Amino acid sequence: MTELERIQTLILESTPVLGRELAYILDSLNRVLADEITATEDVPCADISAVDGFAVFHPSLDGVSKETPAVLRVIGESPAGRPCGASVGHGEAVRIMTGGVIPEGADVVVKKEDAEERGQVVACSENPGRGGNIRFRGEALKAGEVVLAAGDVIGSVEVCKLASLRRAHVHVYQKPVVAIISTGDELSDFHESSSPGKIMCSTLYGLAAQVLETGAVPLLLGVAPDNPLEQQALFSEGLRADVVITSGGLSNGKYDFARETFKAMKVDIKFMNIAMKPSKPAIFGAIDGTLIFGFPGNPTATMISFEQFVKPALLKMMGRKPAGDAQENPFGGIDSFGVDLMGCDSHLRASLVPCRKLTTREGKLR
Amino acid sequence: MTELERIQTLILESTPVLGRELAYILDSLNRVLADEITATEDVPCADISAVDGFAVFHPSLDGVSKETPAVLRVIGESPAGRPCGASVGHGEAVRIMTGGVIPEGADVVVKKEDAEERGQVVACSENPGRGGNIRFRGEALKAGEVVLAAGDVIGSVEVCKLASLRRAHVHVYQKPVVAIISTGDELSDFHESSSPGKIMCSTLYGLAAQVLETGAVPLLLGVAPDNPLEQQALFSEGLRADVVITSGGLSNGKYDFARETFKAMKVDIKFMNIAMKPSKPAIFGAIDGTLIFGFPGNPTATMISFEQFVKPALLKMMGRKPAGDAQENPFGGIDSFGVDLMGCDSHLRASLVPCRKLTTREGKLR
Repeated sequence: MTELERIQTLILESTPVLGRELAYILDSLNRVLADEITATEDVPCADISAVDGFAVFHPSLDGVSKETPAVLRVIGESPAGRPCGASVGHGEAVRIMTGGVIPEGADVVVKKEDAEERGQVVACSENPGRGGNIRFRGEALKAGEVVLAAGDVIGSVEVCKLASLRRAHVHVYQKPVVAIISTGDELSDFHESSSPGKIMCSTLYGLAAQVLETGAVPLLLGVAPDNPLEQQALFSEGLRADVVITSGGLSNGKYDFARETFKAMKVDIKFMNIAMKPSKPAIFGAIDGTLIFGFPGNPTATMISFEQFVKPALLKMMGRKPAGDAQENPFGGIDSFGVDLMGCDSHLRASLVPCRKLTTREGKLR
Repeated sequence: MTELERIQTLILESTPVLGRELAYILDSLNRVLADEITATEDVPCADISAVDGFAVFHPSLDGVSKETPAVLRVIGESPAGRPCGASVGHGEAVRIMTGGVIPEGADVVVKKEDAEERGQVVACSENPGRGGNIRFRGEALKAGEVVLAAGDVIGSVEVCKLASLRRAHVHVYQKPVVAIISTGDELSDFHESSSPGKIMCSTLYGLAAQVLETGAVPLLLGVAPDNPLEQQALFSEGLRADVVITSGGLSNGKYDFARETFKAMKVDIKFMNIAMKPSKPAIFGAIDGTLIFGFPGNPTATMISFEQFVKPALLKMMGRKPAGDAQENPFGGIDSFGVDLMGCDSHLRASLVPCRKLTTREGKLR
């Protein structure tokens, strides 16, 4: 197991799967089913016609051919959605449309192309065999049959299946709320005027976009200045979230307070520093059920760290199953090295390798 | 060019790119930039330090070594975001943090690891060379430089870039509104009770989910009964949308009215019927700038048709550039055959091959 995998595993071990909530079918898109979905009734729920034509009692078609059609009396009609009350006897037929319920007594449907209706009678020139052109009750699905499994991700096909089963709402796993904080006196936000030496807190918005892309809910707490008390106040506001991500303040500079703040808040720190660049200074911990991730101020480093460490945790919280070989690599394929944040690498902090020099330790990171 | 490609091309030729709107940066995620984005200022906007250390006038470091450090007077401090007003002369230094603005007179930064501060002075034992440890103004981006191109799709990296340029809002292409209607007396919706012979209008919800997945806005108009006047009334309500999709009523059965309805509404029909299964009965047309797609009632057929015909049009409307070779295949890679709608194939209509028998014509469809 590589160092990266060891840390990913440690994070996932500390990450709970969140509870369930009822979601409206269209709001369940891209979310994970928390319940197995079974068919509540047979599909189709009755024997129905697969074609437009005439429903008849099979013996009425004995010996028919193009030359010697069976001339049957039309006793009613069964359009889709409006079943016909009549019972079909020998020598009788009911006009039927695709999806129409097969009337009592009938056990075969002659296609309209093989039937010629004239006044009250129809001449049928083809015998499709008993049961021909009928879709039988439960043919597609039997009541009780499993249609979707707990853990399935809901796409448009699943929405269609759920609708066909009259499921307007389904239980899905809840979305984690992710509080996001940037620290640093050099940072300004949209509502503040820019001034010399100030740069935008772009990491805040990059992280919020990543949280949205993952399907979770960002809670933008904004910028905390390089001041231990103000940082602690803002970090504490994040504790009502499921996850807190901070960026900046992790180096050993005179004005780097994030580490102290986490300690003052009695965060149970599971690890500090990760053997990878550029996100080396990183902290993972937990307090009162909230996961805490502390990343560098550099947006490239922090956004890569998000993909490597936070995203797998958020996916687990939302009920996603690990991809690939769960033992070897819990959320395989997450490797975002090579992300280019051209124009964003202006926020470098001492501890970071500039994103142009993104490196991985040979043999340590895939 | 295959028949499928010919029809896709015909549809795209009739499809406009929609206008622009201003979107908040986090709402712009997954949308297409309508404007080129250029840097409005140099990034960094001043010469800044790449490390924690001491900003000095380079000649002050002449001949320094571990044994013979230069002892300089510390005249001020330049933390990130709080530029120092002092000017650095020969024999002087300013304490500086990563991201701090290089003070006037200074042209090199000595890392704090190579400096020992004692009282009012600092002993610097390393000469990084003139310009060393400085990130120069405009090094990452020059004012006026193109950062993102019109047509770029906005992901989290682009959000971060836009934020760093103080762009809280950006022009993106508008989202099409897509009206969705199902027809058929056999259909019931969530708000109606189920009864024998009735099935859920699952196609309506499957299509709505596909519209959402594509990034457009569904307008669920519900179910129209098999009645020409009521169908026309509901179809007409869809004309305020950019696109109308109807499903059902396209066969030649006694109760199939969609074709007549389109004609009565004077829809400019560009084609009817497509040489592919299972979505053979299909209509594409336009009226007063609204694109009209008529598909079969079968959810599998209709959802496949959506992927093949509607999705490329919606993507074009939203400003997406064609993928791959635009000449050969405008929105390459869109091929959803093989979609499994297990449990949804109960809504078959006469003209359709059941979804279990999904076929493509050899050499016609990829």
